[in-house]
Amino acid sequence: MFRHTVMFRWADDVDEETKSAISAGLDKLAELPSVAAYAHGPDAGVSEGNWDYVVVGDFASVDDYKAYATDTGHLELIAELIKPAISARAAVQYHL
Amino acid sequence: MFRHTVMFRWADDVDEETKSAISAGLDKLAELPSVAAYAHGPDAGVSEGNWDYVVVGDFASVDDYKAYATDTGHLELIAELIKPAISARAAVQYHL
Repeated sequence: MFRHTVMFRWADDVDEETKSAISAGLDKLAELPSVAAYAHGPDAGVSEGNWDYVVVGDFASVDDYKAYATDTGHLELIAELIKPAISARAAVQYHL
Repeated sequence: MFRHTVMFRWADDVDEETKSAISAGLDKLAELPSVAAYAHGPDAGVSEGNWDYVVVGDFASVDDYKAYATDTGHLELIAELIKPAISARAAVQYHL
């Protein structure tokens, strides 16, 4: 299994409507046939200094991950909603 | 289920021996009774600009996560090995 993890920090001026639209867009990505498991959400507020949002996706192979990463709807979500809404992004992919 | 995700960037001068010791220390944390699932590892090198290492741990409850977070062996691993070895840390906890 191959896992993709990505965290965001929201930009200061992002409204709740935009955050909800991003969350809905990620729900749609979870339905892609290349995705084996997918769970995303806002930080729970349990710890100080955390980032704001995380996505963890599991894929049967690196190729399945690449199909997800280059999916047109995914790229549109990034360009139109996510990129303008974040101040920082951190990602790691790893083999489980 | 409650999930803890954390990413690291290694400091420039970290050797492979230290990285292996951290990985072994994390393997030991995975055996804590409060941990339901635990998978960590180095970035696979598939994408540009990624961070270096990620840990994803699942817990039955926030309290189980807190037991893990405050475990003495965990705090020692952070203080003695992880903190001196990293230049950046990003974490998110979220409800699955």
